[in-house]
Parts: sequence; C-alpha cells; structure tokens
Amino acid sequence: MSHNDPLRLGIAGLGTVGVGVVKIVRRHAAMIEARTGRQVAISAVSARSRDKDRGVEIGHYDWEDDPVAMAKRDDVDVFVELMGGSDGPAKAAVEAAIAAGKHVVTANKALLAHHGQDLALAAEKAGVMLRFEAAVAGGIPVIKALTEGLAANEITRVMGVMNGTCNYILTRMYDADLPYETVFDEADKLGYLEADPQLDVGGIDAGHKLALLASIAFGTQVNFDGVELEGIEHISIRDIEQAADMGYRIKLLGVAQMTGRGLEQRMSPCLVPATSPLGQLEGGTNMVVIEGDSVGQIVLRGAGAGEGPTASAVMGDVSDIARGIAIPTFGTPAHRLAPAKPARATVPAPYYLRLELQDKPGVLAKVATVLGEAGISIDRMRQYSHDAVTAPVIVVTHRCAKSQIETAREGLRATGVVVAEPVAIRIEKV
Amino acid sequence: MSHNDPLRLGIAGLGTVGVGVVKIVRRHAAMIEARTGRQVAISAVSARSRDKDRGVEIGHYDWEDDPVAMAKRDDVDVFVELMGGSDGPAKAAVEAAIAAGKHVVTANKALLAHHGQDLALAAEKAGVMLRFEAAVAGGIPVIKALTEGLAANEITRVMGVMNGTCNYILTRMYDADLPYETVFDEADKLGYLEADPQLDVGGIDAGHKLALLASIAFGTQVNFDGVELEGIEHISIRDIEQAADMGYRIKLLGVAQMTGRGLEQRMSPCLVPATSPLGQLEGGTNMVVIEGDSVGQIVLRGAGAGEGPTASAVMGDVSDIARGIAIPTFGTPAHRLAPAKPARATVPAPYYLRLELQDKPGVLAKVATVLGEAGISIDRMRQYSHDAVTAPVIVVTHRCAKSQIETAREGLRATGVVVAEPVAIRIEKV
Repeated sequence: MSHNDPLRLGIAGLGTVGVGVVKIVRRHAAMIEARTGRQVAISAVSARSRDKDRGVEIGHYDWEDDPVAMAKRDDVDVFVELMGGSDGPAKAAVEAAIAAGKHVVTANKALLAHHGQDLALAAEKAGVMLRFEAAVAGGIPVIKALTEGLAANEITRVMGVMNGTCNYILTRMYDADLPYETVFDEADKLGYLEADPQLDVGGIDAGHKLALLASIAFGTQVNFDGVELEGIEHISIRDIEQAADMGYRIKLLGVAQMTGRGLEQRMSPCLVPATSPLGQLEGGTNMVVIEGDSVGQIVLRGAGAGEGPTASAVMGDVSDIARGIAIPTFGTPAHRLAPAKPARATVPAPYYLRLELQDKPGVLAKVATVLGEAGISIDRMRQYSHDAVTAPVIVVTHRCAKSQIETAREGLRATGVVVAEPVAIRIEKV
Repeated sequence: MSHNDPLRLGIAGLGTVGVGVVKIVRRHAAMIEARTGRQVAISAVSARSRDKDRGVEIGHYDWEDDPVAMAKRDDVDVFVELMGGSDGPAKAAVEAAIAAGKHVVTANKALLAHHGQDLALAAEKAGVMLRFEAAVAGGIPVIKALTEGLAANEITRVMGVMNGTCNYILTRMYDADLPYETVFDEADKLGYLEADPQLDVGGIDAGHKLALLASIAFGTQVNFDGVELEGIEHISIRDIEQAADMGYRIKLLGVAQMTGRGLEQRMSPCLVPATSPLGQLEGGTNMVVIEGDSVGQIVLRGAGAGEGPTASAVMGDVSDIARGIAIPTFGTPAHRLAPAKPARATVPAPYYLRLELQDKPGVLAKVATVLGEAGISIDRMRQYSHDAVTAPVIVVTHRCAKSQIETAREGLRATGVVVAEPVAIRIEKV
C-alpha cells in the first residue's frame, strides 16, 4: 500500500476519549495530512450502544457491534482501542488486531500493565506498531520524550503525579481545610472517580502508569506486580497541614529507579518540598519528572485526562504511524527487554512521623529512645500545643531505611505511650 | 546499506557540546544499540585546534581540519554540526553534507533561524534528515513534543524562557537585590555570556529559538526578521521589586501566536504571575509552554544549556536517525510551509507602567487624563512613599494595544510632569 493511500482507523470505544478522537479527525483532516503527508480517515467505529447521543456525527462510519470483528476488517489499518479494562474484549480485540497485521493505538494502561510484554512481543513478531501515549499522563507526550527524545540517556529515576483525582483530593483538602472523606464525596459527585474508586485512591491506576514508564526507562519487562502500592485513604488533613507547616506538600507520587538491589517501583503518598515543581502542582494536573545521566532533570506538566488532552495523545500516535515512524512499544525491542527484578528494599529517605502521645512526663524520652534504638536520627521535631489529653508530635528523620521505620513503629506501639497508630510518610528528594 | 551497519558520525566542533556527544557515544554505545537496533560510531572529528586537551580521548577518530571535507567523507552518514555561527564554515559544511546525501544534526539556532527554509528544502530534496533538537531549550525534547507528540493539535500559542543567562540575571537581581550592571558583570565573570553579550541580553539567541518553534507550531517558513526583539538591559531592580510586590516576576519571554493579522513573534521582558510555572522558573533553567486546541497547556522544563543536556538532545536526534525515523525539519514538509506574514500589531494585553513623577499637586490627575485620552483604563495604581522630590507611581492597566501605550508615553512626556522616561512592560497571560 502506498503512503498516499489514507491511513484508516477503526475506533473501538466511543466514550469521552473516543469522541475526542473522532472530533480531531473531523476538524483537522487537512492539517494532519499536511503535517504527516498522509490522509487519516475513520472506516468504522464500535461501542456498547449505537444510538447514544455523543454530540458528534458517527452515522457515516461503518458500525461494528463486535470490536474483534472490527479489528480484523480489511479497511482498517490502525485499531484504536479505547474501551478499557485489562482483559475481556479490549484484550481480545487488541490481540486480534495484531494477529491481523494491524497497528494498535491504545489508551489502556491496565491492559498494558498486565499484558504489555506479551502484546509487545506479538506486535514485534507481526511487524506492527503498538503505541500507548494516551495511557500515561493524558496529553503530556511523556512516552515520546522518554522513548525517543531522551533515548541516549541512562535514566536514573522517573517520578510522577499521574492520577489527577488523587491530586485534586489532596490539593482540595489543603486549600479548603477539609477531611479526606468530605473531599472524596465531593470528587465522587463531580464524577472524578472511577467506577471502582480504589483504582484512583488506592494508587492502582497511577501504579499501572508507573510500571509502563519504568519499562521504557530501564529496558525491563513491564512488572506491575512489582509496584509497591499505597493509596491516599489514610492521609489526614492533619498530616497535610503539618507537612505544609514545615514546607512540604503531600502528593501521591510514583517513583521508579534502578538500584543495585533491583528495580524499585513505588506509588505512595510522599512529602515533597512545597517550592518544587511537584509541590506546586495543583488540582487535576499531571506531572512527570525524568532524570537522566546526561540531561539532568526534565519536568513535563499538563492535563492528565479529559477528552481533548487524551485524544491529542491518541492522535499523536496515529500521526507517527501516518508518518511511518516505527518504534518498539517500550522503546527497546520487546525480545531484548530484561525481566524486572523487584528491589528487596527501597532507597533510604528521610521520613515524616506523626505521633499522638500520652501527655505525661517522660514520654518524649521514650520516643527518642525507640528511634535511637532503631538507628534513626532526628532532623527536626515539633510538639504542637494542644488542649486534649494527647500531644501531637511531628518528627522529621534523617535518611533511613523503611525497615528502620517499621522497627520504630513496632517499638513505639510497645512503649504504650502512643495513643494512635504512628503515621510515617516518606519524604522524596525531588 | 543495511540497518545492521553502524550509523557513522562526523562531528564538527569539539567545544562543550561536541565533547559531550563524544562522551555519550563512548559511554552508552551498547545501550544506544539496544534501544535503536543500530550501532552508533564516530568516524571523524573536526575542530579548530587538534591538540587542545578536551578531557576525552579523540585520537582514534580520523581528524579533519576542514569541516566541509568531513561532511563529504564516505564513512560519514550523519554530519553533526556543533561549530555555531549563522554563516561561514557551519553553513558551508551543512550545505556540503546535505549535497553529499548525509543526514545533519545541528545545535545551531542562528544558522537555522537565518537559513532554515533553504536548508530544509535542500534536505527534503536530497532525502536526508536535518534535525535540531539541541538548538532550542537544550536538553528539553521540545522540538519532538511539538512536531510529533502534539502533531494533531492546532497550536494556539508557544511561549518560552529560553535564554538561561537572562533568566539567571533577572532571578539573581531579585534574589540579591542587585542592579542589572552588577549582575551582568557577575555573569560575565562566571562565563555565562556569549562572546557578543547582545546575543543573550538583547534577546537575539532566544529570538532565534522562538522563530524555530513558531515555524513548527504554525507551519510557516522560519522568519527571524519577523521577531519583535527587546532585551533585558533596561530592566531595573526597581521594576523587578515593584512587580514582585504586585505578585509578578519579570522574565525574558518569547511568545509566538497566529492571529487574524498574521504571525506574532515577540521576545521581550514580560510580567508573569509569580505563582505560574513561568514565574517560578529560577536561574539558568529553561521552560517552554505549548498550547494546543485539544491538549490545552503543556509545560516543559529542564536545563537549557551545558554539556550533558545539549549533547543529550543531539544524541536524541542521532537515535531517531539510527531508528530510521524520518521527520521533516520543521514538522510540515518544507515545500508546504507557508511564508510567515508578520502581524502588524500585537495582541492586546495589560501593561505595567512605572512613572517617576514630580511631587506636586495635580500631577496624578494629569497622568490619569493622559491615560484616559489614550483609551487606557486603569486596573491598579500604587504610589509609593518616597523621600526624594519625585514620586514613583506604578500603574497596571486593563488590556490595551501596544500603540495605546506608545500614545500614552508620548502624552506623558508632553505633560512635563514625568521626570524620567516612563517604563512600560507587557503582562502576559500565562
């Protein structure tokens, strides 16, 4: 087929993103052809309901009830998978498309986090592209930056705030001085939460994205099971305020780095300096920070979700394919990706500790003793004035291992002077 | 030639960036081959002096005194131009390389700002790549983001702080409360300034970069002559302080946008909100902000200069070529780029005015009258307490045209109540 023939899309899934893709193809057909040298057209669409009003005309595209059938159509060159879900129809249709020699563009982080290696191998074998810019950080072209622009760097660390809902909740708690539960309900009413909210607030969605970035950054097979996951459900307004008081913000931060002990992938609430780009990130915006041995630190910021931004990313991949750009799914050819060996322990860091102590003599001494016995030295400590029978104490430690923090927490419980479970949050150097 | 043959580089220019490129090729040969599927090797190097100690071993590469000769060598596939200069040897060598069918990777913004269209046409005709990621914003992969990642967006505005030296000077003036001249001398001693400092503080270097971004963003032929240039030499510590007092920072900001009146390209000091990503950008770091109709606002931040970051960008382009990625120099094929029609007037904006007035009755009334007659309405006005015979007054206007500001400045001079030339700085909405 000549490059002067149109590149024909089959779009499976006509939710927010699918509709956005249709709109871009309709609005910018001439511009995309001028830039890529090839016309991009839609052959067929598929979704659960044909008759829903989507605010965009789709009647002149062929309709398919079955995405797998659409994936195999002779008049489809690129199968655009926007259905979602790690298994089921999305997986079946992507596999069918690859087997039929179609390129695939997807926004489906769950699918790739769970089956990325197998799908990338299949695409490689079939000689087709499998691309997923829209799956990570919405409109931010971070997959392209990491895979291509920074290809000559040994990546030392990738970090990101990649779940807009969590960042909205944490920012809103701080701005409005509201407890987690209240803001969670607000977010729910605003429609910000996934059907299963654990995907957002449990860090799973962001963890999927981190696993994809880590694969590209470190040349390893996607390993979502290796991501240490911790959500934001236990973050209290108290912690947010007291962190702020010491110059920090709390973010659901993903961090991936290769260490001597293996690949470390963490998605967890962290304290970051309030004046850092990550600390200043408010609301639903996403940010990815990439550190390379030559380039130093690169920060990318933009909308992490929504019709326009996500469709922009999908169409960026489609434009690449129209231009004939061939890139392995995870940067390195899939057969050369090494199995990821999860790190047995995380890189040491300072920790923020919040302790609720009995208000009586000798209590602070006991705390100091327990921390000292765990080998933890104290950078800063603040006791806040209080009118209750318990005294809130904030400790910022020097760098220590997570295992030392666990030891200290056990020791603190054993003293009987802590009246609530001690809170420990990592302070990430950004 | 099979893709299993090495991609052979000829490097012209062994200054900071050239040495950085040699180091990356030596350090990361295996990694680059794993990622791109092709070995990258250096065949020959060229520079002014062969014997200088550069801290990196170059003795085993062929030496060429003449970059044009190197550009034509049979064992060079990619000519890497790191000499600099808009004309002379750099231009001759790049032309020779293209004519000889070699790909070209360059960090030379001046060359492309002045001859980009001709060179891009020549490269297109010869079927070779001419790439320049390193020419704009150092290590930030902004050319790639704009050209490829955001290819399906109609770009509405591109902005950037792209001269680290100017941003260093402005930030340092504010932080240390020092006058321009003092910080300029400091920057000079630190080696931050170009041999001709006007390239930095006059906005020329950053203007070159803006013209390149505008070409990609708007599908127009590079038009550096169409850039309205204004340097930072007249920015006083007083303006920086009073802007800060009202919640702004002063940045040398490049802005390109397509308007109904033509392509607007401005490189000038602007006020931006202190809390915006641009306002928060400190020291020598660069930032580019891209706004597209689908993606919204994308912000990219990183080191704008230096050995590692710039070499990372050069090697990003080299990696693309090793992968067989073919992209027109300015995104759209050169023969389809439209001539840029410079806008006859800039988009209206609020302005910051600093007036030094005689300290006597009726003076403020005269100022208000002049502004009113120019059709300028006042958003905020502050008179500062003073012990001299003149009274400093700061005015923030509502949105108005630059021509209205010029009319008002003339009117103010004519009143005889201003004792120094009125300062006017645009407030850019970011």
